[in-house]
Amino acid sequence: MSEIQMSDFMGRVVALSKRRGFVYPSSEIYGGFQATYDYGPLGAELKRLIKADWWQAMVGNRDDVVGLDASILMSPRVWEASGHVDGFNDPMVDCKKCKARFRADKLDESRCPEKPSKQPGACGGELTEPRQFNMMFKTKAGPVDDSAATCYLRPETAQGIFVNFKNVMETTRVKIPFGIAQIGKAFRNEIVTGNQLFRMREFEQMEMEFFCAPGTELEWYRYWRDERLRWWQELGIRRERLKFYEQTDEELAHYANACADVEYEYPWGFDEVEGIASRTDYDLKRHAEVSGRPLAYHDLESKQWIVPYVVEPSCGVDRCFLTILCDAYDEQTKPNGEKRTVLHLHPKLAPIQLGVFPLVKKDGMPEIAERIRADLKRTFRTAYDEGGSIGKRYSRLDEIGTPWGITIDGQTVEDGTVTLRDRDAMTQERVQPEQLTAILLERLAGYDRAKAAIVPEA
Amino acid sequence: MSEIQMSDFMGRVVALSKRRGFVYPSSEIYGGFQATYDYGPLGAELKRLIKADWWQAMVGNRDDVVGLDASILMSPRVWEASGHVDGFNDPMVDCKKCKARFRADKLDESRCPEKPSKQPGACGGELTEPRQFNMMFKTKAGPVDDSAATCYLRPETAQGIFVNFKNVMETTRVKIPFGIAQIGKAFRNEIVTGNQLFRMREFEQMEMEFFCAPGTELEWYRYWRDERLRWWQELGIRRERLKFYEQTDEELAHYANACADVEYEYPWGFDEVEGIASRTDYDLKRHAEVSGRPLAYHDLESKQWIVPYVVEPSCGVDRCFLTILCDAYDEQTKPNGEKRTVLHLHPKLAPIQLGVFPLVKKDGMPEIAERIRADLKRTFRTAYDEGGSIGKRYSRLDEIGTPWGITIDGQTVEDGTVTLRDRDAMTQERVQPEQLTAILLERLAGYDRAKAAIVPEA
Repeated sequence: MSEIQMSDFMGRVVALSKRRGFVYPSSEIYGGFQATYDYGPLGAELKRLIKADWWQAMVGNRDDVVGLDASILMSPRVWEASGHVDGFNDPMVDCKKCKARFRADKLDESRCPEKPSKQPGACGGELTEPRQFNMMFKTKAGPVDDSAATCYLRPETAQGIFVNFKNVMETTRVKIPFGIAQIGKAFRNEIVTGNQLFRMREFEQMEMEFFCAPGTELEWYRYWRDERLRWWQELGIRRERLKFYEQTDEELAHYANACADVEYEYPWGFDEVEGIASRTDYDLKRHAEVSGRPLAYHDLESKQWIVPYVVEPSCGVDRCFLTILCDAYDEQTKPNGEKRTVLHLHPKLAPIQLGVFPLVKKDGMPEIAERIRADLKRTFRTAYDEGGSIGKRYSRLDEIGTPWGITIDGQTVEDGTVTLRDRDAMTQERVQPEQLTAILLERLAGYDRAKAAIVPEA
Repeated sequence: MSEIQMSDFMGRVVALSKRRGFVYPSSEIYGGFQATYDYGPLGAELKRLIKADWWQAMVGNRDDVVGLDASILMSPRVWEASGHVDGFNDPMVDCKKCKARFRADKLDESRCPEKPSKQPGACGGELTEPRQFNMMFKTKAGPVDDSAATCYLRPETAQGIFVNFKNVMETTRVKIPFGIAQIGKAFRNEIVTGNQLFRMREFEQMEMEFFCAPGTELEWYRYWRDERLRWWQELGIRRERLKFYEQTDEELAHYANACADVEYEYPWGFDEVEGIASRTDYDLKRHAEVSGRPLAYHDLESKQWIVPYVVEPSCGVDRCFLTILCDAYDEQTKPNGEKRTVLHLHPKLAPIQLGVFPLVKKDGMPEIAERIRADLKRTFRTAYDEGGSIGKRYSRLDEIGTPWGITIDGQTVEDGTVTLRDRDAMTQERVQPEQLTAILLERLAGYDRAKAAIVPEA
């Protein structure tokens, strides 16, 4: 199906994402900065569409989940209660010569900054004994210059939900079982970053905490596992590239009684794209204990105040973005023997869904094209392009994942029809412009990534 | 029109925004934190809708503006070049006794933390001489524990756009004049915070940098002034509450050759909600100078490389949110003499646009209601509610700014019609459910905030 060696694959995805304005290294004119990335014009659009799709699936379409948008800077006591101040640590060793710091459990994967082809200590430096290193970013907020002002950039969005549980219960009409969903930035001072968007120090999360009656949590856990897998497939991700990894009792965090990772088969192997965790009542109990405020619901049957159990589907926006790019990326030989690079993006996620092209810049074609576009713009994200050969314009559409292009040509001037070109099948057919909206909406609804990869016969 | 004293107004808006789940004090169970706020279920939705509306107006609807989404943590050299490291300062004085820090130019507005009803020094402490205090939040990133890892939380999103100018020019098809737009968090260690969402240390910006040929910038500046004022009006904000404040030559920042603030009449008076600045070529030139990378475009006529001039409309999401709440909030006496609190939100911004109510929980009414709702859900954000008296359900809709409610009652079972209740006019009329989508879309398109405020005669 794909003609690329897996070893080259990631480099090509990264190159395309830069070349076409999806992802740029951050602060690039200053030599980059710490494995952070910026989303370019097409990337910002794709990221926005991913978030909107998740929000619609998790909040908009449901009566049992509400949204939340908490601040990044919170009271440091939140992180004391959650365990992040004491426990969010990796064992680290320092090189006494080059001063670099490495994860003691990942020395094999680490590189000496002085001699980047070599491993830690390769500069001749001795390594210290392992010691704990907290992954939270610290800063100082406010005008009073004492320790009370020290705070953290949140390392996860989840705690913003837990500390607002009482507020949401008291000011909305939610009843157990219900969820609170949130999308937002989080920060972790990771020692080992890498694979472009996969592991960064600044990233964005999409998390939902689903509060349910004790004893029902494993049922809900299975429900959300299924729901979330369905969501990934509905993004157009191929089923055979997705699998669950069920954590063993030994691997489970101390507060969890079940946890599954959704894994995607990246160029470097299967790796985590989402975690669905049954977190018991740990977080609410901790915050109730430390804050002194009861965090519970009143059960009408037993007339008791009960602390709900929590199931949490949590995934990263950036990782989702990378998964979509990796799954969509392909290099193919066209029926005419030419090579092409193509992104088989699901049409609902394509930053530009439809290219509108006058074949030439004369004979009234640009005017007809603009007129047809004006109508299609109401339903689709469109781009108008009148420069270069039509073949080059189609190639560009392929590379940015635009599923459809229409061309206004000599025949349009005669009979009104336009050429509709399909990114995946590479077919061209003549259709009446007024039929386009219906045709394209139907193709969008019926999109199948597996079929999209088939190169038609010559 | 409004029956509220201006002096009470802000407190009532804040109370409603808490009571109905729009805005909560952040980390409230821990006593709050540093004038930060969290958006509750309805607030998260309204904020999301504001951002989507801005993005559509500034990017989606235009061929000459593209999006960007840069990281919050950038190379510290960005802020050296931009002038923020040296120049982003306020003159501060410290109290030697209580250690509190105050803005030297705003001592009148400041309060001693020890004696909050009194002014700085009221604890008996002596104040230091004024000195400069940098408003950027500092943190340390990465494993190497030396000063090279010190970086800042961005104090504005604009610089993320300037440092990506070259990348966007080289990887997309933009041509001068064009804009790059961005929405994202920014952080300023403000000394004086206040008025709830108006001035916070963590906030979100919607900024666009419009790059144009030197000499055309004042024309574009006027264009964007008009465009942005139109956007504010299209949010439903009353025109008479908006005005421009044109900065004088003395007030202009050293890099600007024109700047206007859009001001809204808040309960405390007119204050800035947006700035439209003609920033000349200052930023691009500075980054080119410091980074050593040329940031220019090739002018086809003169065959020269030219540094574009920049016009920047910049506004805060949170401030926009507060403006919308303030402009929408009203307390009225209904024709029957009862009081009500109502948010005259533009229907396009209402977190819930339509309430669907069975009059009673029997006689098949819930089933009919769910069926009607299923159809309307495709077009509108709806909520189903079967609890409490119908009057209470309408009151709740009023307070959360839901423009329409429909009730399924005995007559529905007979003739199929439902009652359509209008938030602003407080009218109730019977309509066929299948006509609702068309009726409501028409009312949405024709919404007029001025008319919305008129209480009908008894």
